[in-house]
Amino acid sequence: MKKLEQVYEGKAKKVFKTDHPDQYIVEYKDDATAFNGQKKGTILGKGVINNKVTNHLMQMLEEKGIPTHFIQELSDRETLVRKVSIVPIEVIVRNIVAGSLATRLGISEGTPLKRPVLEYSYKNDELGDPMINTYHALAMELASEDELVTINRYALKVNQLLLSYFADRGIELVDFKLEFGRLSDGTVVLADEISPDTCRLWDAKTHEKLDKDRFRRDLGNVEDAYQEILRRVMGD
Amino acid sequence: MKKLEQVYEGKAKKVFKTDHPDQYIVEYKDDATAFNGQKKGTILGKGVINNKVTNHLMQMLEEKGIPTHFIQELSDRETLVRKVSIVPIEVIVRNIVAGSLATRLGISEGTPLKRPVLEYSYKNDELGDPMINTYHALAMELASEDELVTINRYALKVNQLLLSYFADRGIELVDFKLEFGRLSDGTVVLADEISPDTCRLWDAKTHEKLDKDRFRRDLGNVEDAYQEILRRVMGD
Repeated sequence: MKKLEQVYEGKAKKVFKTDHPDQYIVEYKDDATAFNGQKKGTILGKGVINNKVTNHLMQMLEEKGIPTHFIQELSDRETLVRKVSIVPIEVIVRNIVAGSLATRLGISEGTPLKRPVLEYSYKNDELGDPMINTYHALAMELASEDELVTINRYALKVNQLLLSYFADRGIELVDFKLEFGRLSDGTVVLADEISPDTCRLWDAKTHEKLDKDRFRRDLGNVEDAYQEILRRVMGD
Repeated sequence: MKKLEQVYEGKAKKVFKTDHPDQYIVEYKDDATAFNGQKKGTILGKGVINNKVTNHLMQMLEEKGIPTHFIQELSDRETLVRKVSIVPIEVIVRNIVAGSLATRLGISEGTPLKRPVLEYSYKNDELGDPMINTYHALAMELASEDELVTINRYALKVNQLLLSYFADRGIELVDFKLEFGRLSDGTVVLADEISPDTCRLWDAKTHEKLDKDRFRRDLGNVEDAYQEILRRVMGD
């Protein structure tokens, strides 16, 4: 598989064309950003960890019936994926109150939600990824009604599967962000990544944060936390 | 009907007990506030206009199958209503982009939406009435699933009815805010007010603003705009 021209560079990943028209290569970087790019830094080894954790979880989800963009891990930082056009909606699933939700709704961080909360954000850096709902998504034609039903169903199923997967490894899944993409035939599949960059993961006993909040909030031991997640997810 | 002790004073209205346990008297004030109370002022005659406009529209909606809290207009500023406990959700319905939505989604004010957009806000002044969705409302137990289905259905029906009512009077219904309440038996009814304080209303030909945005944005002729809405709604 040949790595051809770069088609996209995001905050944490680059995407390259390949000699197959329906396949891309994703390359994970160590660059870390927070607060919509206002805070910048590096988390050494993050790219390798996020690549491996994402691929492990994507394969687990695929086996349980969630279609994903994953094809094959190519190297420590590179993965072959199905080419998708990303649906410009960030899907956030929350099990425990944390981060912006705590401030926004005046509920203490750490409060369990009585049922999972699903939120949509309009994926737009300039606007700061504003929260939207189904009506906005439809009025702005970000996705069709059928696509939103599918995305909603997949997101809640992914939550169930990840909650149980992480719980077995002593990790509380506080919240996470998903992105979905359309294959060339329109099929919606799970895309992007599932990693300590995109999930809030707390140690189930100590409630220690093992995710990007260590970077966002200057809590130290960022690399150790990412390594710990890799270790537990891979079951080494 | 006796007006007894005051049970509530809001930004634009006072509510009083009566000698009937299931009935309250609402009294409309001329006080105007905007930006969550940061801007304060007076719109002379507003209380009278909002009382009359609200009652007229509530009766029209009631006739068309929307249950409301309205019982009887008692005076220029006072109305007898059914006692409700307010569902702490502000329901916003939008037909044309304006106000916070324009800023939030980067769409020019005045852009027609391809379909009506319904938004919920958590009614909480301290938090600035943050936008929420159905999942937040359920997780925070602000309303039951059945109540949300009812509220949603009523809100979209009210939009249809008001759109057509205002259109017949040369007014574009840009957006509006509704509040719902529970009667003592749990029945959900439309409550609060429907007025130039709670609706964005533009002249259909000139697109001139005939609502509280004249006060919010210091556009002048605030009282004239409210009078014009009263005149057109009452059909004088």
